[in-house]
Amino acid sequence: MTNLILCGGAGTRLWPISRTSVPKQYFQLFGKDSLFGKTAERNRALCEKFFIAGSVDTAFLAQQQLNDAGVPKSRALFEPIGRNTAPALALVAMSVDPEEVIFVTPSDHVIADTPAYEAAVKRAEVLAKDGFLVTFGLKPDYPETGFGYIEHLGETVVSFKEKPDALTAQKYLESGKYLWNSGMFCFKAGIFLEELGKFQPMVLDACKSALKQNENHSDIKPEKSAMERIPSISVDYAVMEKSRKIRVVPCSIGWSDLGSFDSLYDFSRKDPAGNAILGTEQGIMLGSQNNLVFSQSREVALVDVEDLLVVDTPDALVVCKKGSSQKVKEIVGVLQQKNPGILKDHITVPRPWGHYTVLLDAPDCKVKRIEVLPGKRLSLQKHFHRREHWVVVSGMARVTVGSEVHDFGPNSHIHIPQGEIHRLENATSELVIIIETQLGTYFGEDDIIRIEDDFNRV
Amino acid sequence: MTNLILCGGAGTRLWPISRTSVPKQYFQLFGKDSLFGKTAERNRALCEKFFIAGSVDTAFLAQQQLNDAGVPKSRALFEPIGRNTAPALALVAMSVDPEEVIFVTPSDHVIADTPAYEAAVKRAEVLAKDGFLVTFGLKPDYPETGFGYIEHLGETVVSFKEKPDALTAQKYLESGKYLWNSGMFCFKAGIFLEELGKFQPMVLDACKSALKQNENHSDIKPEKSAMERIPSISVDYAVMEKSRKIRVVPCSIGWSDLGSFDSLYDFSRKDPAGNAILGTEQGIMLGSQNNLVFSQSREVALVDVEDLLVVDTPDALVVCKKGSSQKVKEIVGVLQQKNPGILKDHITVPRPWGHYTVLLDAPDCKVKRIEVLPGKRLSLQKHFHRREHWVVVSGMARVTVGSEVHDFGPNSHIHIPQGEIHRLENATSELVIIIETQLGTYFGEDDIIRIEDDFNRV
Repeated sequence: MTNLILCGGAGTRLWPISRTSVPKQYFQLFGKDSLFGKTAERNRALCEKFFIAGSVDTAFLAQQQLNDAGVPKSRALFEPIGRNTAPALALVAMSVDPEEVIFVTPSDHVIADTPAYEAAVKRAEVLAKDGFLVTFGLKPDYPETGFGYIEHLGETVVSFKEKPDALTAQKYLESGKYLWNSGMFCFKAGIFLEELGKFQPMVLDACKSALKQNENHSDIKPEKSAMERIPSISVDYAVMEKSRKIRVVPCSIGWSDLGSFDSLYDFSRKDPAGNAILGTEQGIMLGSQNNLVFSQSREVALVDVEDLLVVDTPDALVVCKKGSSQKVKEIVGVLQQKNPGILKDHITVPRPWGHYTVLLDAPDCKVKRIEVLPGKRLSLQKHFHRREHWVVVSGMARVTVGSEVHDFGPNSHIHIPQGEIHRLENATSELVIIIETQLGTYFGEDDIIRIEDDFNRV
Repeated sequence: MTNLILCGGAGTRLWPISRTSVPKQYFQLFGKDSLFGKTAERNRALCEKFFIAGSVDTAFLAQQQLNDAGVPKSRALFEPIGRNTAPALALVAMSVDPEEVIFVTPSDHVIADTPAYEAAVKRAEVLAKDGFLVTFGLKPDYPETGFGYIEHLGETVVSFKEKPDALTAQKYLESGKYLWNSGMFCFKAGIFLEELGKFQPMVLDACKSALKQNENHSDIKPEKSAMERIPSISVDYAVMEKSRKIRVVPCSIGWSDLGSFDSLYDFSRKDPAGNAILGTEQGIMLGSQNNLVFSQSREVALVDVEDLLVVDTPDALVVCKKGSSQKVKEIVGVLQQKNPGILKDHITVPRPWGHYTVLLDAPDCKVKRIEVLPGKRLSLQKHFHRREHWVVVSGMARVTVGSEVHDFGPNSHIHIPQGEIHRLENATSELVIIIETQLGTYFGEDDIIRIEDDFNRV
């Protein structure tokens, strides 16, 4: 069975944890683990093969984290633009054997009850092998209005329901006949494509065209122009709500989509006073109850407060009343005008070659800590508006400056003159860490002129 | 008239704004101005001469800020240990002409009504010249239990009262006969010493002994052993409550001691929603009312919260319910065990020669931005456990390494080998700014071996 992990979500309501360059699924929310990492970890016991589908800008994070989760090889659909779920599933289904069972999962959900989850997936696999399109229906805990519902009789789907109003959601909950539509699916590739062809022949054809250029490639990289010709449509609407081959596996697996800080609080473990404390620091709680505190490296103290969501990152802080976390979207709206950069990047920015942390960003000077993974290298590049000074902290850095290439160990200093072509490389099996001091008048990432790049960013 | 500014306060209840190395009176709480700076600014119109009294560790801050406030020359009492107010006043009174009027003020209070303040001080000066010991009595706004009270009839003091309980404070307030004891005094030096000699001859004698070594010096630097022999006693208890030459100037000057975040909120200007926003960032307030927000450089957003005190510094955050800010002392108690360093220093640390900011503090690497004031220099020093790399960002740095001295302009790099004697100096009239990358295994300030120092720190 192939696990297709959908990685497209932006997680805007979890800002400042979730940022455009590291959406919530990739953020190390629980110690070393991201939601994506936990998804891969969970599904490794159930699937032999992995396929990821997501934005070309962040897919490298999925590949790195799959690797960290012990999945060394996977395939990828790099989407130049998002077209919702049906086209993504179709493009992947066309790229595997028609008999292959595909298990589709989001990357940004949490599941607390692994045995129940595994039992449900195994049941779905059996149904998929029998030729059904299988969806997973979650037994609702409360009258949520933000999800679609499935009316069912055992594994038979009676009807799909749009997101209900509060009263309807309450009725659904009380009747016991409705399940939350989880966004997880399981089916044979060939069956899915047959059904898609029946109900959405245009989507099928447009996906076939987009795939043509990619024949014989392990990864799928459709052209942007070809993607633009594919209708944007969800798999629920395109196929599931119309097919007669549909089945549902009802399950109760301790699921949450962590769609808001309220749901992050609900899902997290609490101390005896009801405080959920996430991140590296313990926090000091004086007379404070039922709060969520997320922090990374700062001392955080709460005094005589309750029902607060306190989310603290190195460059942004949100203090929100519990129950109001949907309003984080409004903060994001304000910041789109006021400070868009803070929506895009954390101060630590991952790159396909490793990551950097901005230590200082002043008008005349920018300082970064740069970590290069073994065997990786940054692009061959130059800058028009800055000079750089590198000090090697650890590892052996292979440095190109102009036509010269030399290896530099700890305590070495390298000067990169303005306009000079240069490259930083780690040709060893140990991390390379440097401190970079940039001097000049402009330090934007768009003053990186790439001459050559291992990651196709030229 | 000489303004004696007492600078000894620690301001513990304003942590994390107030730290041991920069107590609240020196912190730039209101934009560029500190409470000390505002005190000096205020008194410059009233006094020709200035005397500061405070810890030897932080007195340089008072001298720098006096200078910034346009007071180029001042005298100082450097206290190796604190002995409360009476000895400080005595040591200063002994060091000026007996006919000189001394106006004693704290450094960490705010006064909103400058004209009323000036009128009160001028009246006090007249009374002092007539030979009285003058105290300032503030008309109370509310039944505060944290201050002492003065019972009065016009300018005549009927009695001094200890800090009252809530009921007594309420009675004092309602009677209209009581004033808050402000901690400000005005008297002729000779009269004060006479009265001190009457009631506390031991204190007078011990102060005389401590001063002996300092004859003919502008600044007073008593030996620690001599200071230890002086009884620790407040001026109220030692003299004011006993002398018959006492007078009080009742006044209403918009005074606050900013003793807690609650009083900081009360004193600060509010927006129409009752939010007081201090620091450099505006903050994003969604549905939030009557909060105090202090932040320096981070984006802070509040959603649907009210009556909170949110105090945000680069390395520590306090979220406190309004009315509970006295409990900040308890946080400090916890941190004395858990993380004492965060009680001592901000990430930006002032020094007599300028200041530095810690950008990174990792086990193998520490990065600082260092700013050296014109004409100042760091000590001639060496380190046993670190190598340093300096990159000049701006200005012309005069650098000693071993026996070599050279001037280095922007974009220069200087390497300081482990164990090598070195010095950084600014011999120009412009700021010198460098980025320092330290490599090694230990970066504590106690691995600075000073061979020579302009500030007597060898």
